[in-house]
Amino acid sequence: MNKSAFYKLSYGLYVITSGGAGKFNGQIANTVFQVTSDPPTLAVSINKKNYTHECIRSCRQFVVSILEETAPTTMIGRFGFKCGREFDKLDGIAIRTGVTGVPIVTENCVAFIEAEVIKEMDCGSHTLFLGRVLGCDALDAEAEPMTYAYYHTVKGGKAPKTAPTYQAEARPKPPAPAAKAARYACTICGYIYNPEIGDANGKIKPGTPFEDLPAQWSCPVCGAGKDKFEKER
Amino acid sequence: MNKSAFYKLSYGLYVITSGGAGKFNGQIANTVFQVTSDPPTLAVSINKKNYTHECIRSCRQFVVSILEETAPTTMIGRFGFKCGREFDKLDGIAIRTGVTGVPIVTENCVAFIEAEVIKEMDCGSHTLFLGRVLGCDALDAEAEPMTYAYYHTVKGGKAPKTAPTYQAEARPKPPAPAAKAARYACTICGYIYNPEIGDANGKIKPGTPFEDLPAQWSCPVCGAGKDKFEKER
Repeated sequence: MNKSAFYKLSYGLYVITSGGAGKFNGQIANTVFQVTSDPPTLAVSINKKNYTHECIRSCRQFVVSILEETAPTTMIGRFGFKCGREFDKLDGIAIRTGVTGVPIVTENCVAFIEAEVIKEMDCGSHTLFLGRVLGCDALDAEAEPMTYAYYHTVKGGKAPKTAPTYQAEARPKPPAPAAKAARYACTICGYIYNPEIGDANGKIKPGTPFEDLPAQWSCPVCGAGKDKFEKER
Repeated sequence: MNKSAFYKLSYGLYVITSGGAGKFNGQIANTVFQVTSDPPTLAVSINKKNYTHECIRSCRQFVVSILEETAPTTMIGRFGFKCGREFDKLDGIAIRTGVTGVPIVTENCVAFIEAEVIKEMDCGSHTLFLGRVLGCDALDAEAEPMTYAYYHTVKGGKAPKTAPTYQAEARPKPPAPAAKAARYACTICGYIYNPEIGDANGKIKPGTPFEDLPAQWSCPVCGAGKDKFEKER
């Protein structure tokens, strides 16, 4: 099996929110698709280890907020690499409430779909939830949605180990950097700091060596400190 | 419900083949995603009316061939708008055989994944099949996969009525054309001939009115003749 074939499958990037009784959570997912059009239903695959899985299981409702292409990696890191059991990921994020009561993330999103679970399929590490659509709307009809390919290629993003599409070491590494410009990898989320690119989110100009980053600089994806980074070999 | 939200979901475009005992079929699908990575599984949603559904149900195997961005609309039309019950869609198409015996479409494809059905979920008009991956490989590691957005935006493609994402009249119409340059719609597949764009596949230059198209010209998506076209109002 040459698993690089999997990287040719195309996906979007979404914030999946769920919960009830005043306790809500959100996570990033790329595995969302429409299943039927009459009535409109959609499927989402969620790792059983994720807190969102627990929320969907108990409240039977979820919202898919469709990320905009321009969404910063910090937002994806917040929802994708932190655990909602210890941390309120929705704190400070722009939301609205629709027909389900589950928060709809409006910040950096182009549209949303609210659904109630009508079926589920046990798929081993993940559950595939089938949701009947209760409501949906565009937030910015003109804006482009973020694709998984764009996130990886342009944004330099990674997938957490609990993602359906995570493949340890399978994704081909980019060519080794020149001698002076060592790249550093975040040991928490896998983000690569490339001194040739810098970090636009953190206002770090291209050409800045890792060693020269300010002490308070943190990983633009998961927020880990400089001490969590290791030099790439 | 503002169903334009659904158009912000991102997809690829795939040929799904299945069958056995020397009788095989293929169809276009956009609803494929990886569900788990260990073991690798993927989900595909297929309309119950489609002949491919019958094939998967009986042989329990399918292949996902991932279309390349440059795949011509004629190829998508062949697999997406014709019925395999009356027509051998694979006749003359470059294929190879892998571990399942189901034809892998190699023509205009960047990679493929072979799978056996391990579960299925009845979703009304569609069945969601969960396949355990038996084999996969890249056919062209450098080439870009076709996305559903690219197919619609750049190629001017449409979805058949049996697609999960088909929405009659929901997709916003492009602005009306200038008086002289009337556009014509294919009554079979919905393809719009836009004289301002022409038809690169049929070597029709931009600026060619529909009336001036050669008599043998046919729909680049489904192959229907000029007589199957109606002027857009």
